[in-house]
Amino acid sequence: MDFSKLFNPESIAIVGASRDPSKVGSVILKNLRITYRGKIFPINLNTDEIQGLKAYRKVSEVKEPIDLAVIAIPAEGVLSVLKGCERKKIRFAIIISAGFKESGNAGMKLEEDVKKFIKTAKIRVIGPNSLGAINTSPAYNATFIDPNSKPMEGNTAFISQSGALLSAIIDDATLEKIGFSKIISIGNAVDIDEADMLNVLLNDEKTGAITLYVEGLEDGQKFIKNAIEVSKKKPIIALKGGKSRIGAVAAESHTGALTDNNMSYDLAFSKAGVISVDNIDDLFNFMRDAPTLKIKTDEVIIVTNAGGGGVITTDAISAANLKLVKLSNNIVNELTKVLPKEASLHNPIDILGDATPERYKETLEIVSKLNKPIIVIFSPQETSLPIETAKEISEIQMQNRDLPILPVFLGGARIEKAKRFLRENGIPAYSYPNEAVDIIRGLYIYGTFTPPVYSTYDKTRTKPPKVSSKENLFGLHSKDVFDKIGIKTAYGVLFKNETELQKAIKKIGYPCVLKIASNTIAHKGEVGGVILGIKSDEDLKKAFASLKTKVSENHLKIDGYELYEDANKENRQNIEILLGAHRDPQFGALIGIGLGGEYATLLNETEFMLAPISDKDISEFRNSKIGKIISAAAKHKVFDELIDYLIKISKLMDANPQIKNIDINPIMMFEDSVIATDFKIYNS
Amino acid sequence: MDFSKLFNPESIAIVGASRDPSKVGSVILKNLRITYRGKIFPINLNTDEIQGLKAYRKVSEVKEPIDLAVIAIPAEGVLSVLKGCERKKIRFAIIISAGFKESGNAGMKLEEDVKKFIKTAKIRVIGPNSLGAINTSPAYNATFIDPNSKPMEGNTAFISQSGALLSAIIDDATLEKIGFSKIISIGNAVDIDEADMLNVLLNDEKTGAITLYVEGLEDGQKFIKNAIEVSKKKPIIALKGGKSRIGAVAAESHTGALTDNNMSYDLAFSKAGVISVDNIDDLFNFMRDAPTLKIKTDEVIIVTNAGGGGVITTDAISAANLKLVKLSNNIVNELTKVLPKEASLHNPIDILGDATPERYKETLEIVSKLNKPIIVIFSPQETSLPIETAKEISEIQMQNRDLPILPVFLGGARIEKAKRFLRENGIPAYSYPNEAVDIIRGLYIYGTFTPPVYSTYDKTRTKPPKVSSKENLFGLHSKDVFDKIGIKTAYGVLFKNETELQKAIKKIGYPCVLKIASNTIAHKGEVGGVILGIKSDEDLKKAFASLKTKVSENHLKIDGYELYEDANKENRQNIEILLGAHRDPQFGALIGIGLGGEYATLLNETEFMLAPISDKDISEFRNSKIGKIISAAAKHKVFDELIDYLIKISKLMDANPQIKNIDINPIMMFEDSVIATDFKIYNS
Repeated sequence: MDFSKLFNPESIAIVGASRDPSKVGSVILKNLRITYRGKIFPINLNTDEIQGLKAYRKVSEVKEPIDLAVIAIPAEGVLSVLKGCERKKIRFAIIISAGFKESGNAGMKLEEDVKKFIKTAKIRVIGPNSLGAINTSPAYNATFIDPNSKPMEGNTAFISQSGALLSAIIDDATLEKIGFSKIISIGNAVDIDEADMLNVLLNDEKTGAITLYVEGLEDGQKFIKNAIEVSKKKPIIALKGGKSRIGAVAAESHTGALTDNNMSYDLAFSKAGVISVDNIDDLFNFMRDAPTLKIKTDEVIIVTNAGGGGVITTDAISAANLKLVKLSNNIVNELTKVLPKEASLHNPIDILGDATPERYKETLEIVSKLNKPIIVIFSPQETSLPIETAKEISEIQMQNRDLPILPVFLGGARIEKAKRFLRENGIPAYSYPNEAVDIIRGLYIYGTFTPPVYSTYDKTRTKPPKVSSKENLFGLHSKDVFDKIGIKTAYGVLFKNETELQKAIKKIGYPCVLKIASNTIAHKGEVGGVILGIKSDEDLKKAFASLKTKVSENHLKIDGYELYEDANKENRQNIEILLGAHRDPQFGALIGIGLGGEYATLLNETEFMLAPISDKDISEFRNSKIGKIISAAAKHKVFDELIDYLIKISKLMDANPQIKNIDINPIMMFEDSVIATDFKIYNS
Repeated sequence: MDFSKLFNPESIAIVGASRDPSKVGSVILKNLRITYRGKIFPINLNTDEIQGLKAYRKVSEVKEPIDLAVIAIPAEGVLSVLKGCERKKIRFAIIISAGFKESGNAGMKLEEDVKKFIKTAKIRVIGPNSLGAINTSPAYNATFIDPNSKPMEGNTAFISQSGALLSAIIDDATLEKIGFSKIISIGNAVDIDEADMLNVLLNDEKTGAITLYVEGLEDGQKFIKNAIEVSKKKPIIALKGGKSRIGAVAAESHTGALTDNNMSYDLAFSKAGVISVDNIDDLFNFMRDAPTLKIKTDEVIIVTNAGGGGVITTDAISAANLKLVKLSNNIVNELTKVLPKEASLHNPIDILGDATPERYKETLEIVSKLNKPIIVIFSPQETSLPIETAKEISEIQMQNRDLPILPVFLGGARIEKAKRFLRENGIPAYSYPNEAVDIIRGLYIYGTFTPPVYSTYDKTRTKPPKVSSKENLFGLHSKDVFDKIGIKTAYGVLFKNETELQKAIKKIGYPCVLKIASNTIAHKGEVGGVILGIKSDEDLKKAFASLKTKVSENHLKIDGYELYEDANKENRQNIEILLGAHRDPQFGALIGIGLGGEYATLLNETEFMLAPISDKDISEFRNSKIGKIISAAAKHKVFDELIDYLIKISKLMDANPQIKNIDINPIMMFEDSVIATDFKIYNS
């Protein structure tokens, strides 16, 4: 759908425009008047004029067409205003009003009603509980941020779920001369959400990079889908609030958003090529530099006039999993010609404390041929010339427009002007080495992003059955399902009584394992419901008697008993593995594989993937710790069989949206085969 | 020894004072003239007057006593000048001159000569290759930093191994109004090193906190010893350059310092209560706030006017392993009385976007009773009043002088004044939440530091033998040593030929294990030198024949063979553990315990401790992943036995400085006992 009228409207109505300067509706009108060149229609029931503009009682009174309505009236009246807008054929509205989902049950009801109306209406809505939206070219500021903090024009879009952070960031950005293309306070996202906004910004020529502050997403899969498309063209950088478990509780209490723990977001961001940052200052640097810098390699060059600066930068590069370029003999020879003999010609290239602007220039001319990102450290010393050095750096940049040059100017007052000069010339300038390194790391992730490919996933054949049961299926109750998708489970028989046991043992043989059968007792071992190592008729008789006693003494709710063959009769070397799936409310199925058995929870070595499983997921798993352990202990085909199982579980989750968790633990992995000896499906 | 004349000299000679303003000796003189009220004696062979002061040809020409000599002449002349200073009874010198160890072999020789002279002289020396030293009260600036960057008086000392970083940091600190008590560029530390400086600063009343930039330490144990004493009184904050392996190479090439990887520094800093920071901006914040803030708890309160700010702060708190205070009903009730009903009364306490200064004040008054660190988030919104809010915060601080209040003022131009106001009133003011959290985390580590106690270590009785061998001792060659200190090893017999084998098998019995004996082949299994599972005379015969063939075919250098009992005859459940020791060049023995056997390197679950092993090391190990795995798999006494082994290895390392590594892997750990089945001592 065409969103051009949202960001480039010919006329804007502001419902709740006010003469009272303390009211939100007054501030928005003021901001609009300052920034917007189109027609403004203040709407107010009680007055004819506001801030010198003719006011109307209702949008229907306005004769001319209206492209965008900004609504800033108490929550109770919003639905009725929206209906009026729809009748007036207004196609976009921004609901500033708070008092919806975020403020309890009554607000929740109001929000539901608005949502229901929008579903069948033609009007598209940002908010409610939004600070508003800003376009810088053509300009309009339909927010209630302080009219004194004037966002500048730039190439970065910013979408925020927190209005307060948004206004603080605009404030700080303006001070630092960072500009924006569009700014959107997404609010409760009753209609237009982050994923929609990504779609709009994908083709916005003014937007070179998109930054997000996100606390929770309603539809994670839609976000991933749209983000993948965007990541093919421009970088997305996200700060996720509520990463920690306690942070998530804080996020929930203030936005009402459903949040899960961090892992699903990490996996989703990684799948979609989204650069994830940890704090506001990082977000800030990306806002400034993401639209211009292009990083296609993880190898970095450091040029420094301070040994210590080189050391610290190298540490940061290593911590970020980047590398230092190894300089060829040719380059070293060229450097020898221009640098003093005390200079260090290996990367980091230490051009010494007395480095002149000329020396910086000559060094940069040589290493710029390598076409790799260059971090240039400048530490002010007695004889240094900050501005002149900045000018030389700028010259080099002019001659190599696409070369990523990242100057780090250490120090205070003496280098401020030089930093400003660089920034005014479109060159980043950082205060500390780790900032430059974080930018390179992030943009490298983006620069080498490829959309997920699912060739192994698509090739895997399986017929996931529809699981109709609404209760959990533990043990042999779920065996049927695993049989159908092709996951090998230990051979076992369900039985109810002594007579059936005698038949069962004839099929199973010794050694065998006896368990209670139950869809409610998840950990049978813990209640004494499992007896291993049964080797004879006599063992079996005793075991069965003992189980029956346990059941009656502890009033265990069982559906009979299970007799299994011993999956490791020959006592062969094996590793216990676990496979599992968990349905994340935002992103769908998370599939996990890790060390199983006794020490699983202590070592907690599990790798997770977000369904569907991509070829990249598989190759990353292969290179993970647990992937390597499996490769070391088993043959190639066993590894592939486990991957096959992961995909089958993923497809099973897909075919049965009611399944909450699948838990196969342990799978005994032998050198040449695998077999699951305990397995559960959680439907409730 | 008394260092008072170093920092409070009555007269300073500057050897190499110069009339040429481009010379280091000119800048130092200028800095001294600007800052120093005592007598200055410029020393220069060729002139009678410099910068209006009478100059002398040699220190011996000065009639009055001299307390401190600053030497800034070419390296070649330094030793002779030092000798002159010694004759003149000057007790302290700062050698600015470069051209020593850091610049190759010739410089190394010059440095050795200086070192040798100082050993028997009375003069104590800072440098060479030092930027100089600064005291702010009573003031002198004996450095060649830019005379325009005037370090302010404050309560933090700064010792730096990098001169360039030091000048950049002073520059930036001055801009940010951060002051210093003393600043020392430690240079090549030919005499006075960081540990000595710590000792001096321990009793310096002007110094409330000590910050360090370190790349390498010559004598790590001395550093730990002195740092522990300092940490009882004032915090030490260290930025370690060269943490990564590649960073260490960079550090080595520019300072000539021996550096090891990071782990030993982490362990040493932790043992000594030193707060370790990762980057310059963190170091900066500690410079400002460490002398004043006292943190004794890991529980934090957040008061915020922006939900998103609260969320991000909570995430940072969780990532730093800190906690949120759980508010009591009483506190919540009090808050109810002063806050609007939409406010969130749980921690983080969200006092809403329209929070007035008054509301901040009332909230802070209530929560300040809890006497826990409070992070106050201020995000500028349309109606907020930054300065007035800062004033209320300052009021609360005045009423509760020891309460750690950490305001975070988000945003740009609109909050600059408020931040300045807070800082001028001695209250920290951060730009981002993670800065406040990092400060709390660091000062909490310091605030709860207790010097190491060695009760278990001291109680452990063992008689470590003197190992005289200079070659490695592998397998049974080292068994003797382990027997003597009391570490159980698998029973085995060394033999040379068939006849001895027959005798050996009578002692060992079946099943058994046959190995080659060698002090040069570390991984016998990899060359086919180990045969397991020998169950009969026939097996043994075949095994021995096969080993002999392997040896001759592959020209293996062996000293015979080893026959071991099978340590797990009964095929009992066990976990393979590894114990090891490694001698770190700076800090002495590192002792490690972890998962052993096949997957040891893949999982890499090993905990390290720095010898001697403290009670805290033991309790931290107990709570580590691997500690918990051992506890889960074995009885209490087995855990204690492994700790006992660790201590014994530590004492063995102590008694034998030539031992480089000890490698006991695996130790088979059964539920009720342990036994080492492979063990090696590396002497070379």
